[in-house]
Formats: sequence, structure tokens, C-alpha cells
Amino acid sequence: MISIDNERLARQIQFLLEIDGLKQVLRRSVILGSSRRENSAEHSWHLAMMALILHEHANQPVDLLHTIKLLLVHDIVELDAGDTFAYDFDNAKTKEEREQRAADRIFGLLPPDQLAQLRGLWDEFEARESAESRFANALDRLMPMFHNLADGGGTWQASGVRLEFVERRAAAIGEGSDILAVVAQEILRKAVAEGLLA
Amino acid sequence: MISIDNERLARQIQFLLEIDGLKQVLRRSVILGSSRRENSAEHSWHLAMMALILHEHANQPVDLLHTIKLLLVHDIVELDAGDTFAYDFDNAKTKEEREQRAADRIFGLLPPDQLAQLRGLWDEFEARESAESRFANALDRLMPMFHNLADGGGTWQASGVRLEFVERRAAAIGEGSDILAVVAQEILRKAVAEGLLA
Repeated sequence: MISIDNERLARQIQFLLEIDGLKQVLRRSVILGSSRRENSAEHSWHLAMMALILHEHANQPVDLLHTIKLLLVHDIVELDAGDTFAYDFDNAKTKEEREQRAADRIFGLLPPDQLAQLRGLWDEFEARESAESRFANALDRLMPMFHNLADGGGTWQASGVRLEFVERRAAAIGEGSDILAVVAQEILRKAVAEGLLA
Repeated sequence: MISIDNERLARQIQFLLEIDGLKQVLRRSVILGSSRRENSAEHSWHLAMMALILHEHANQPVDLLHTIKLLLVHDIVELDAGDTFAYDFDNAKTKEEREQRAADRIFGLLPPDQLAQLRGLWDEFEARESAESRFANALDRLMPMFHNLADGGGTWQASGVRLEFVERRAAAIGEGSDILAVVAQEILRKAVAEGLLA
């Protein structure tokens, strides 16, 4: 777009312009009070805000900056790999390979030290082993439940997802935060009461 | 939406659901490779990513977490006040009052300690006095220049904005980062060469 003399800065800017595309990757769920599908960029902002406001509720103390980094970066691979719907069990099989290839290309735009850093953040988010990753994953699973409940069942309805699958997915929330797992249970209780989940 | 026993958590969740609306606040500029206008939520994510990748280029050392917090929060008042176009000098007069009222209402949904924290972050971003605020503001001013250049002049063209106004606005980039100010100058040089700015 423009030429930048400093090679390191040029690579950083190229990466930052490339990830603008995450604003065009659509998720299944819709935003509150609208029929528009949410994109992965605005979703990532929302999760970072959740971390800022809710980190006191993590089961183990978490480093807030590290948690926010995990959330800012966790969906960038969707730029190439697309958003894989949580309940699309066929596509889930190829998800890892598609996302690994995407990570190689997209993070590979960066200078080597930052490639390693972002790749590490993404791997850590996926592994759900560190305290920060568990809490970040809990937030990532909780927010769509609010969206689905507000949307009259949303993606649960549209895809005929059964309660047991949603419950299994929601169970991971408790690995990050017991109190947020209670909130998730309350959402499911209400969704069943309203006939939104079979 | 659901009832939550814990009053503190209930307020936090109410705030987090409320700010979902930032995904529907449209800015003037369009995203790269599309004619769709950018919203303030995805914009905030993009700026937080810029801080993560570019913070080494700040004129003064910055605390990364604090910089990211400023950027995540800086546009939330637009939920009520709307996005005020940088070159709309009439609306600029009422901007402060509209945004103060918005900050009272929206941050007021939070528990008192977090109300004070977020209100403080927003005030600090607006004041452009701390090192983190200057750098965050530099990022906020630089990215739309890329969008405008990619979009054949974008909001500069559509609104008949003159070079001197854009230059004045871009000058603040140098307060946060000298090297990013050079990038901004290069964007303006190219925009003038392409006849995108008069």
C-alpha cells in the first residue's frame, strides 16, 4: 500500500492490515437486538472487555494482560480457516489442520520474535491448560449462550443442537470460573423452560 | 435476561450485555476490501492488536496492559453519543456534553470501583497527557488513514476534507510515536499524489 523503509515495521503493518479481514469472518450467532451475524473481530473485543470486567471471578488468579492477549489473538486463524461452528462435528475433524496452516501463514507475516509470541498465544488458548487459557475459554463459551438465549434459541434452534451437547460444551466454563458456570447453568435452565433447547 | 443472585456479578453482566451495542455503532470509514462501514467494536479490537504489535515504537515506554485498556474502552460512550466524525466541526461542539452523559449512564451500570476505573480510563484517553494515552491516540488516528487510502480517499473524498485538516489531525500521531508519524506522512504523500486529497 505504501513503502516503509524499516523492514520490521513494514512486516508489522502488513500483518495488521491483513487481520482487518477478521471483520469479515462471520460467526453463527447474531448480535443482541439485531438479526446481523457477529463477526470474529468484534467478538474478540467483547471477550477482552469480559476479561477486564470479570477476571476477579477466575478460579485461579490470572494475569490480566496475558488473558487479554489470548482473547485478542484466539480467532485470527479464522481469517483463512473460517469460523468452525461448535456443533459442526464433520468440519471439526479438519479444523485443526486448516487452522495450523492458517497460523503458519498469518503469524508468519510478522517478524520472527512476534511470530513465535502470537503462535504461542494461540497454541496456549487452544490447549486450555494454563489458568489464563481456562478462564479465556470460559468467557469464549459463555457469551454465545447469552446471544442464543436472547435470540430465541439462535444457533441452538437453527441447527437442532441438543441439550447434552450444549451442556458438555458449557462444562468447560467451570474449569475457568465456578461462578460463571452457575450463570451458564441458569441460561440453560431458562432456555429449556422456554422450549429453546430440546 | 436471567436473574443472578450475586449483585456485583449481575451488574457486571448487565454492563457487558449493554456494550454489545457498540457492534452497531458505525464509523465513517469502511473496512479493507469491502464497502461495509466499520463499527466501533471491531475498530477497538483492531487498535488493541496494533498496541500489542507496535508498542515498541512508542516515543516513551508504555505499559502495554494500560494502553490496551484505554483502547478497549475509548469508544464505549459512542453507544449513546454516536460516532462523531473527526471532520464534523458542528457536531464536535456538542460532542463533549453528549459523551459525558453517555459515560455517566453506561459506566454507571458497573459496581462503583469499576465505574471509577473505566471512567478514569476514558478520561485519560481523551486528555492525551499520559504516555499510554498519547500512544493509544496515535494508533486511533493512524489506522483510519490506511482505510481511507485503500478506499480511494474514503471519508476524505466524501466529505471534501482538506489536506490541512488531515495534517493537523495526523500531527498528534508524532506525540505518541515519531516513526508512526513518518508512516502517516507517507500515507498523506501518496494520497496527494493520487489526487485523493486536495
